[in-house]
Amino acid sequence: MPTLSPLAPARFPDLPQVDGVRFATAAAGVRYKNRTDVMLALCDPGTTVAGTFTRSATRSAPVRDCEAKIGGDGDAGAAILVNSGNSNAFTGKAGEGSVERIAAAVAEVAGLPEARVFTSSTGVIGERLPDDRITAALTDLHEALDPAGIEPAARAIMTTDTFPKGCARRVEIDGQAVNVVGIAKGSGMIAPDMATMLVYIFTDATIARPLLQEMLSDLTDRTFNCITVDGDTSTSDTLLLAATGKSAEVTSRGSPFEDALHEVMLDLSHQVVRDGEGATKFVEVSVTGAADDADARKVASSIANSPLVKTAIAGEDPNWGRIVMAVGKSGAKADRDTLSIRFGDIEVARDGWVSPDYAEDKGAAYMKGQELVIRVDLGLGSGTATMWTCDLTHAYIQINADYRS
Amino acid sequence: MPTLSPLAPARFPDLPQVDGVRFATAAAGVRYKNRTDVMLALCDPGTTVAGTFTRSATRSAPVRDCEAKIGGDGDAGAAILVNSGNSNAFTGKAGEGSVERIAAAVAEVAGLPEARVFTSSTGVIGERLPDDRITAALTDLHEALDPAGIEPAARAIMTTDTFPKGCARRVEIDGQAVNVVGIAKGSGMIAPDMATMLVYIFTDATIARPLLQEMLSDLTDRTFNCITVDGDTSTSDTLLLAATGKSAEVTSRGSPFEDALHEVMLDLSHQVVRDGEGATKFVEVSVTGAADDADARKVASSIANSPLVKTAIAGEDPNWGRIVMAVGKSGAKADRDTLSIRFGDIEVARDGWVSPDYAEDKGAAYMKGQELVIRVDLGLGSGTATMWTCDLTHAYIQINADYRS
Repeated sequence: MPTLSPLAPARFPDLPQVDGVRFATAAAGVRYKNRTDVMLALCDPGTTVAGTFTRSATRSAPVRDCEAKIGGDGDAGAAILVNSGNSNAFTGKAGEGSVERIAAAVAEVAGLPEARVFTSSTGVIGERLPDDRITAALTDLHEALDPAGIEPAARAIMTTDTFPKGCARRVEIDGQAVNVVGIAKGSGMIAPDMATMLVYIFTDATIARPLLQEMLSDLTDRTFNCITVDGDTSTSDTLLLAATGKSAEVTSRGSPFEDALHEVMLDLSHQVVRDGEGATKFVEVSVTGAADDADARKVASSIANSPLVKTAIAGEDPNWGRIVMAVGKSGAKADRDTLSIRFGDIEVARDGWVSPDYAEDKGAAYMKGQELVIRVDLGLGSGTATMWTCDLTHAYIQINADYRS
Repeated sequence: MPTLSPLAPARFPDLPQVDGVRFATAAAGVRYKNRTDVMLALCDPGTTVAGTFTRSATRSAPVRDCEAKIGGDGDAGAAILVNSGNSNAFTGKAGEGSVERIAAAVAEVAGLPEARVFTSSTGVIGERLPDDRITAALTDLHEALDPAGIEPAARAIMTTDTFPKGCARRVEIDGQAVNVVGIAKGSGMIAPDMATMLVYIFTDATIARPLLQEMLSDLTDRTFNCITVDGDTSTSDTLLLAATGKSAEVTSRGSPFEDALHEVMLDLSHQVVRDGEGATKFVEVSVTGAADDADARKVASSIANSPLVKTAIAGEDPNWGRIVMAVGKSGAKADRDTLSIRFGDIEVARDGWVSPDYAEDKGAAYMKGQELVIRVDLGLGSGTATMWTCDLTHAYIQINADYRS
């Protein structure tokens, strides 16, 4: 077992039940021994499902299958079946066969059309998925379904995550309580070939699929698409959001429901960074004053992905010269003389040079913190972006280089 | 002193003199003690100069000055003055003043117009350049100029390079011998704030400036723009090419001269990778079968910059799943079922899955080599690209994180 991340939360949160969804887990022996590795979530009829997926051109068979199914509406319930240990990615036509067999078996046991069965797989790339071990566990899984079973579900989807990830928010809509509850796995590209972020969010709200998808896509761009551990992108990233329709209806954007969903997604995305491989610091990169938002994002991404910035943070080195470098290479419009840099509230550089009041010991003291904010203002316009990342440490190399497959 | 790179050449090559150019070095104490840190190269009247520079938006004062001067033709000679220890980058208006004072002093001692004095600085970012120490050394430098002084020049421009870098080629044109001789410094972003690749190439050929610049720009795209150590870009990268006009004339593209120049640039660029921070493997990434050359470059760059691919190589792990991942995230058109991957001549994957003849021990044996070739064929078109990189090791983190500025 990897060491618990120093950035892990104190404990798994108490997650409320979401009316209309039940969970079960099993130890099917896909790859791991002596732990659960399959989870089934079953949603009642009337559920709408939205999803966002990796943009990888080599995405896995289950991702392609989910993408094909996600647009379909229907009154039937929905099932989500996830295994850990094997990603079923780059497994040729055999991979598609595995997805079909699993979906067919889940559909049969749950009494659903196959089009309402969504699957995810996470783990080794390029090895045949032993789907028979998963389908053999389905009857037991179906019998064990439990509305209180979300924490075991969060544990079953882990690969080399050092902690399970969950979050919940509750809002009141038209006098009715609405829950938004999510679980996630991922910590960059955790261990060799074990590379995925998976997120499942459930709500009892009633929401039409097009609105649900629109909200999810927009909020993904402001949460999960704003985090980076190593800049590498999984072939299997999947985020599914299911609304069971048991509570109040949400009919428009900008509602308290959307705020709650945003909070759950932001919290889960930060938990993924906090479990980043070898991470010892949680870093927010906040860019303002860019020519436009796209430029701000280029700068934030360049800083958050720079190995030199990330190793400096690991070394608690207030190395603002590397931030200047990362701004410069980003491709965004930038001007030395209008650029300013702050570490938290400490102004480090402005007017094209180090700030007159800045002293190295101030920056060095700030860098000893576990939660850091790097602020860059380009002084050009009103574009803004925020990204979250972690430092790049010896442990990252240890995890990714010293392991032999 | 850092440990000599295991990928270093056995010794510095014997470099021939280039008629019309002389070198001198000095220990001016810009930052380092007990070593040379300034070099002056002086070219005779009739010299044409071409240059390529970092694309960084936060490029340094000397880079901006060179860019402004590089287009100017003239019958006067040309001087190149380089210091190590301080990059004069992000030093505000003061940085521009330093460049002006150095250029004026060189112009005076060498009897040149200021427009023919090119300067480079490499070292710490954000500290005022003590230009008075450099200008104080100029009279001695000018008196010491020596046509045989190129090896000391290669040493004076080093920062934390572990070896000096030089290369030469000779071709015959119209019965006359033509020399192309270059020196370089750089090893990624060597040590904190010491981030630069500097390259100076001299030839006695006679070449009009527009042709010289055209050749240099094209060849830079196939050599120095195809190498990566950590994907970070210096604020000071500079490549200057001076043709003294003492030997035969080159009047068109595609000549033996251009081949020789290409070889010198390729060799020097590979030496920079071989001195990459913490490097233990030299890796060629060769992409074929892309939809077009731009797509091939995207894929090659994605593989060559992927921390997961580079840590796998460090661990001698034939982790082809990470190459699939890097292809997928590149943004280039790719198709799982037409993609093939080889390690050297060993076919690893094809038809969307692992190759039937591939065995893990073959790949593991190949990965033990010091010189590796990763070949990816996308099976879509005729686009090709080649990039060169090194592995990502504990030593990289050591150099960049454990150092405190």
